Amino acid sequence: MEINIGIIGGMGPKATNQFLDRITELTDAANDQEHVRYILYSDPAIPDRIGAYFNGTKSPVDAINKGIDFLERNGITTIAIPCNTAHIWFSEFKAGVNLLNMVDLTVKAILDSGYKHPGFLATTATIKSRLYIKNLEEAGISAIIPEQEDTVMQAVKLVKLGEISRAKATLKPVVKELEDNGSDSIIMACTEIPVILNREDTELPLIDSDRILAEKIILSAGKRLKPYNK
Amino acid sequence: MEINIGIIGGMGPKATNQFLDRITELTDAANDQEHVRYILYSDPAIPDRIGAYFNGTKSPVDAINKGIDFLERNGITTIAIPCNTAHIWFSEFKAGVNLLNMVDLTVKAILDSGYKHPGFLATTATIKSRLYIKNLEEAGISAIIPEQEDTVMQAVKLVKLGEISRAKATLKPVVKELEDNGSDSIIMACTEIPVILNREDTELPLIDSDRILAEKIILSAGKRLKPYNK
Repeated sequence: MEINIGIIGGMGPKATNQFLDRITELTDAANDQEHVRYILYSDPAIPDRIGAYFNGTKSPVDAINKGIDFLERNGITTIAIPCNTAHIWFSEFKAGVNLLNMVDLTVKAILDSGYKHPGFLATTATIKSRLYIKNLEEAGISAIIPEQEDTVMQAVKLVKLGEISRAKATLKPVVKELEDNGSDSIIMACTEIPVILNREDTELPLIDSDRILAEKIILSAGKRLKPYNK
Repeated sequence: MEINIGIIGGMGPKATNQFLDRITELTDAANDQEHVRYILYSDPAIPDRIGAYFNGTKSPVDAINKGIDFLERNGITTIAIPCNTAHIWFSEFKAGVNLLNMVDLTVKAILDSGYKHPGFLATTATIKSRLYIKNLEEAGISAIIPEQEDTVMQAVKLVKLGEISRAKATLKPVVKELEDNGSDSIIMACTEIPVILNREDTELPLIDSDRILAEKIILSAGKRLKPYNK
């Protein structure tokens, strides 16, 4: 059987590695051979999403479509793009295959969860584009945007520089703000966030777009999820 | 410019993720765009190397050659295979491109380092095949094989099951043995080993085949290594 799962990564590299680790850790496998087979097209040179959204610098669409073409040409039938901000341009991606929509999958998980006041951690481009917010509002859920939105961006940039412990310290007051302002959960709507924030860092339930997409990939590959125990 | 770096991964998945993380962490990059671009062909279904070597089960050669074909067909010019044990079959790999030899690169690093009595952590197949040992002996260096060789295999298997902290506890007495028996350094000649063993765990210098291959990939991609500070 051929490999049929494709991933477009590099946005950014550390977040992609975390995503691959999620796939590995969440698969119920007793040996190497029971793990997911996939092709990763990792192109960190894909133009910066934030700059494209706010400053009109080069759009990431062509570079992402090049990756999609590459994967399709090689027989891939399901593609994941583990970068929430890139999903701003989702309608411009040219896929003749099953292109998973990370935002839709996560919004569905939020609706299923029953949380009504989720705190929202994302890049400023994801926030301003109302990528998640619009879908949630339509379902009667108002996401709580932290006042310290710029601080979230700083933490994301620190992850991209490999400064994980500094990123964690930077994000801490934002998490505190969400805990204090009535959030009943936290949506991690940027793949850099779960690199630094985990269950030890807050008592609020975490809704993790990265994990949700990883689980979808495992199931799409015909593999089993590990029993949920953490 | 096209992507010209290829990686064959999945042997095992956790070790591959660690290898990708090494590439990310060791690259001197101020933003996503300065990181290495690559295609990862990740096929954990590649037949088990240990079984093939000792029990004559299916050889991994055809599956690895399929990966090499895939990468070559897509314009890749440099390929890394981050699995030491797979290098037992290196002469059977069909590459028309620059196929990096992790063992040769690491042996060169050992010779450059000047260590004369390196402790040797590897799978039993790597040990019995004398993959590193022969090259080192020819240079007058006798690698010290731990008496608790089976324990190393247990630790490797635990990594493959995602049981990292148990793997660390399992490997600890072997590291103690190497410290006590006159080893002047430790060769990590299995990509599962650096997932569990790092500089905090021993005072002996670590010679890490995974890191050496990652650095070679970064340079092959025309990127810069981070200044060495740890």
